[in-house]
Order: sequence, then structure tokens, then C-alpha cells
Amino acid sequence: HTIPQAPFWLKMKKTFEIAEYVTCLGEKIPDLKVGYETYGTLNTQKDNAILICHYFTGNSNVAGKYTEDDIEPGYWNLIVGPGKAIDTDKFFVIAVDSLCNLCVGDPNVVTTGPASINPKTQKKYGMSFPLVGIDDFAKVQKAVIQSFGIQKLYAAVGPSLGSMQVMQWAGSYPDMVERVIAVIGNGLESPDYLAAMVDFWAVPILLDPKWNNGNYSPESFPTEGLKQSMRVMSINCLSPQWAKMIANREFAGHNPKEDFSAKYFIQQALDEIAMARLRLLDPNHFLYLVKAVQNFSVRNQISKMKSRFLFISAESDALLLPEYAIDSCRELKARGLHAEYFEIEGKGGHLDGLYAIDRAGSVIEKFLAR
Amino acid sequence: HTIPQAPFWLKMKKTFEIAEYVTCLGEKIPDLKVGYETYGTLNTQKDNAILICHYFTGNSNVAGKYTEDDIEPGYWNLIVGPGKAIDTDKFFVIAVDSLCNLCVGDPNVVTTGPASINPKTQKKYGMSFPLVGIDDFAKVQKAVIQSFGIQKLYAAVGPSLGSMQVMQWAGSYPDMVERVIAVIGNGLESPDYLAAMVDFWAVPILLDPKWNNGNYSPESFPTEGLKQSMRVMSINCLSPQWAKMIANREFAGHNPKEDFSAKYFIQQALDEIAMARLRLLDPNHFLYLVKAVQNFSVRNQISKMKSRFLFISAESDALLLPEYAIDSCRELKARGLHAEYFEIEGKGGHLDGLYAIDRAGSVIEKFLAR
Repeated sequence: HTIPQAPFWLKMKKTFEIAEYVTCLGEKIPDLKVGYETYGTLNTQKDNAILICHYFTGNSNVAGKYTEDDIEPGYWNLIVGPGKAIDTDKFFVIAVDSLCNLCVGDPNVVTTGPASINPKTQKKYGMSFPLVGIDDFAKVQKAVIQSFGIQKLYAAVGPSLGSMQVMQWAGSYPDMVERVIAVIGNGLESPDYLAAMVDFWAVPILLDPKWNNGNYSPESFPTEGLKQSMRVMSINCLSPQWAKMIANREFAGHNPKEDFSAKYFIQQALDEIAMARLRLLDPNHFLYLVKAVQNFSVRNQISKMKSRFLFISAESDALLLPEYAIDSCRELKARGLHAEYFEIEGKGGHLDGLYAIDRAGSVIEKFLAR
Repeated sequence: HTIPQAPFWLKMKKTFEIAEYVTCLGEKIPDLKVGYETYGTLNTQKDNAILICHYFTGNSNVAGKYTEDDIEPGYWNLIVGPGKAIDTDKFFVIAVDSLCNLCVGDPNVVTTGPASINPKTQKKYGMSFPLVGIDDFAKVQKAVIQSFGIQKLYAAVGPSLGSMQVMQWAGSYPDMVERVIAVIGNGLESPDYLAAMVDFWAVPILLDPKWNNGNYSPESFPTEGLKQSMRVMSINCLSPQWAKMIANREFAGHNPKEDFSAKYFIQQALDEIAMARLRLLDPNHFLYLVKAVQNFSVRNQISKMKSRFLFISAESDALLLPEYAIDSCRELKARGLHAEYFEIEGKGGHLDGLYAIDRAGSVIEKFLAR
């Protein structure tokens, strides 16, 4: 994979507040806060705005760095920037931290969810936080967009969980989004097979006694459950070729063939990936995100849709299978809508939609030019 | 799928005993017992014997029924029987219950493993049972075979975990097996990606406090962990098409979009599959089988191999990917060995190697005729 190198600018996270947010199910959340970032300049007609929605473990840092010392720039630095596929010399890019963002402890993330303090009780909501869905993610984003006076998005673009949000825009706000680019996504809904797969992302947290129905503390934290949840999510997002490349059936220490407790390097690698930023993550937020994925469907809004669609899948994606996007693309075309499909060649699995996204750069650029 | 209908005979499970079995790592297991079944007649030259090795949740009941009332015959009834692809009018078929067989509580299973009583302590071994591998499964099978006076197998055939055992035969006993048919298998070894996937079959059991390091009782049994282990194994063996067919995003009871604790039908279906025979299964046996899969490799025995190989994969298998067998087939051919590959068309996932095995019937028949 090409790893993004130098930043093209330094970024700042800003905070957007809603005094009382009403969820799509009608529940009230006071003092809602989400972080956002912008890139480029909003023109005077306010018709050059592109919303970018992030993936499960991501946040609104799409491009750039926060400090000169940051190791990595934002996740789509390959395609977002001056002169790039999503050209910030032309477009005003805006990205918003999702509700229930996983990385609550990341100082650059601003979110509201189960780990937030309920102003009424002065305690964390935990599992008493209202049930929110992808429709709520989009509704909050709409409020951010409208605060800029933007009435219509030039495009909404997002990978993975972000793809569900941009499809939600097409379904919920058909007059407010001209173009939709759904990258490594599942199309119109989460298929049953996906809903089943992500069930096993939640299971380890739920089985950890320290999860305690969502009432944990830093002193009694479901570390093991959350670690296993992150491990299984990681392998679902990767590929046989990745696993072989980094592990090749080797082990450090005792031979697993001779010692039941010994581990192969692939097992240790998943441990390390999971542990790298574990204490920044919130297990209840993780569960709310899994639920949002399982509940995602805009199939019953399809008749209202008006946007032009570009679906981009990764050939070796074992999580959000290319067939999901292909089927939805076909379904939209059958209804007379404009829908295109492009597949990223590669052996990196789901994550090719992040780290190999430059392979779709010219397709994105062309789609945005029309 | 074609579901096997009528039995062609009634079967009996017999028991084979080894007074003191020495594992491949040199540990001793007294009073080892495994069940076995035979079909057809061993000829006087004793050169018409075919060993069939079973899959993770299976046992030696390959074909036939135990009583007239049994709902289903053995798992490969479609291809094993008089006049079928593995023709019991010609061949003497023998099948052996594996060590650490998962279905300890099934009255038709005879096995030795962590749930067995250690004669020295008069208590269950639990996790103190010696670490055994696929090489031990084959070594025990060899003892059964030799008890019939058989010096060389006409063929060894098996699906999934059974494919690993037949590949082990080719590596460990190259002069004792003329033909190997490895169905829905992983070829010469368990790739890192597979080792990682099956890690998450073990994780739920390990996270359940009632597992208690393997020291559970019927009164304090890790039901929830074992259930989740069986659920994740099930979905890995199935497919998006299967999930859609049985669930289609429907739910019974409360709408999961409105009630955090409500479930989609796909989630309930996995519950039901897991619970169907849960109390017949042993969680420690499950962990030993996962470990055996992770440790499987005959790559370092490849130079000794002499058998003729037929690899059969299922097109839509998301667990033991067709590429694993394809790569191993290529590798064996490059060494001058005879190796063929056939792919079962279908959308049933890994389980097409069981329920759609008749699609490979003529290929198996031809391979056995030469």
C-alpha cells in the first residue's frame, strides 16, 4: 500500500453544538456536540460543498495533520487536497465526527454518546443513551451543513460506515444532495450476512463481565472484551494476503504446536493492533455503532431518491462484499437513476478502500466533474 | 440444496481401544477409545479400503441411519453407498470418530479428550489433557486401519477438518495412502488468515467466566460462550445467500430499530442453530479442535508425499477459501505429483462441501477409478 506521506496543511477541529437534539425516534438529547473540520473555501453561491462521512473507527480528520509531528495525515489524504481527486481548490469539504464516535478519548474527537454526561443525572448515559441510527448521523450532519447556509450538497462521499451515511442522505434528504459516492459500502441496506458478522464484533464486549451492562469505570474496564472486539473487526477488514505478509505462520517464543498457550504471530499482531489505542475507545459506543450498522436500511426510501450515484468497492473486501454494491447499483439503475460502479483491484481487503483509494482517484474526479 | 432422504442401511458404531496411546509429542494417554463405522466389505487382498475423515462438528456417521426413526442419514449419504460415487459395492469404507470430538454427549459418538476421565485422578482431564494435533488424529486412525490388517489405503477422503486429516496421511504415511481427496480444505497448511478467523470461534468460550479455565460442571456450564462460539462458526460456514433466504431482514417481536435488545431473525436463527444440540457439546473439546486447526501444517512433509491428489472446493466458501486448495494443488504439481482441482458451483458457502457434494460425485468417481 501507498502510505500517505507529507501533510499539505495543518488542521483544526471545531465543535458544533445543538442545544436540544431530537432523535429520529423522537427522543431528546440536550447539549449535543460533534466535532467537524473543513477544507477549502465555500463559494458565494454556497454550491460547492462536499460532505465526507467517516468509517467505524475514524473521525472527521479526512486530510492534513494537527501538528507537524503527527505521524499520519487524515485517512483520505491521498484523494482530498489541492489538485487531488476531491480538489479543495474547487470544493469546500466538510467532515463531521459521528454520534457515538468510537474514539471518545482521542483529544481530536468531539462526539456525543453513551460516554457523555447526561446533564440530568450528571452521570454517564451508558446504555441509557437514546437509540440512534445512521438516520441520526445524517440529521446531525444536516444541521452542521445548514449552519453554513448550505442548502444543497454538491456531493456526499464516504467509506464503509461513511457509505451508509451518504446513502442515508440520498434517502432522507433527496433534494439536498446532488451526487453520492459510496465507497466500500453495502448499498441500500445491511444484508443479513453482514448483520450477523458484526454481531460477533459486539459479542466479546457483551461477554466480558467487566462490561457490566455498560456500567464500567476506568478502574474496572472491559479491556479483554473490547480487545477481542477490535481484533475480530480488524481481521474482517483485512485479507489472507495481508495476514500472510505480516505473519507467514511464524511465532515468537514457544511453539504453539507444543504449548497450548503459545501464540502465532498473526494472533499477536491482532493483539497489538487492538491494544494500540484501546483506552481511547468506549465499549458502549462500539455497541451503538454495531447496532447502527445492523439497523441500516434506506430501501423503503428508494422511490424518493434523486441523486447520481457512484459505488466503489474493493475487489478483495470480505466484509462489505462487492456484490452488495453491485446489486444496489443495478436496483437504482432499474429505477431510472444514474448509478455507476467501480472496483478497486487489490489484495488488501476492506481497507483497500482507505489505503488504496488513489486507485479510484480518476473515477472520483470524473464523476465529480459532471 | 438436496437434502438426503432415505437411508440405504442401518449403521452401528463400534469402539476401538488403545491401552496406552503415545501422542506425537510423546505424551501418554491410557485407555484411549474412539468410535468407528464401516461400510461395504474388505476384500481378501485388503486393498479396497477408503478412510473417510469427518469435519469439525461431525463424527464417523458418514452414511446410513442408526434407527429407522432417524431424521437424517450420515453427512455424505449423497456420495457414499452402493452404486454411488464412493461405491460401497466396490470399496470398504471406514470412518473414525476423531480425538476431542466435539459432540461428546451424542450417544453415537465415542471419543477421548478433555471431557474424558483421567484414570490416574478419576476426574475429567479438562485443560490438562495432552495437546494433540491433526497428526494424532491420523495416528489413531492408522491404528484402527491396521487392526483390520490393512497396509495401504486405496484412498483417504474428507471434508473441511477431515481434509486436513487426509493431507496429514499423505505427509505422515506416504506409503500407506494411494489417493487423497481433500474436500473444502485448506491444502498443505492453515493460512494465517484462517488461524485468525478460528481464533474468534474460541474467544467466546474463553471470555465466559463459567468456562473457568476448563473446570466447569453441568450446573455451572459456559452456555453463553459456547453458544456464541457455535454461532460464529455457523455464519463462517454459511453465505450471504443463505442468510438472505432464511431471514430477509425480518424480525419477530419488537423492531430492532426501536428497541436495542430486539433481534433480527438472522440473529435468532443463529441462536437456534447453536442451541439445537448445545448440551451435547464440550467447550474444552471445542478449544482443542480450534488449536488443531491453527497448528495444522504438512508443508515440511511435502518432499515425502507420493499420493495422487484431488482437491474439491466450494465456489462460495468464505472460510476455507478456494484459493487455499488451488495454491496447494499448484505447489504439489510443481513437485511432479499428480494433483487435480475441482470447484463446486453454488451459493451455499462452506457447507456446499456437505450438502451439495453430489455435484462433485462424478469427479470423485472418475478419480477413484484410476
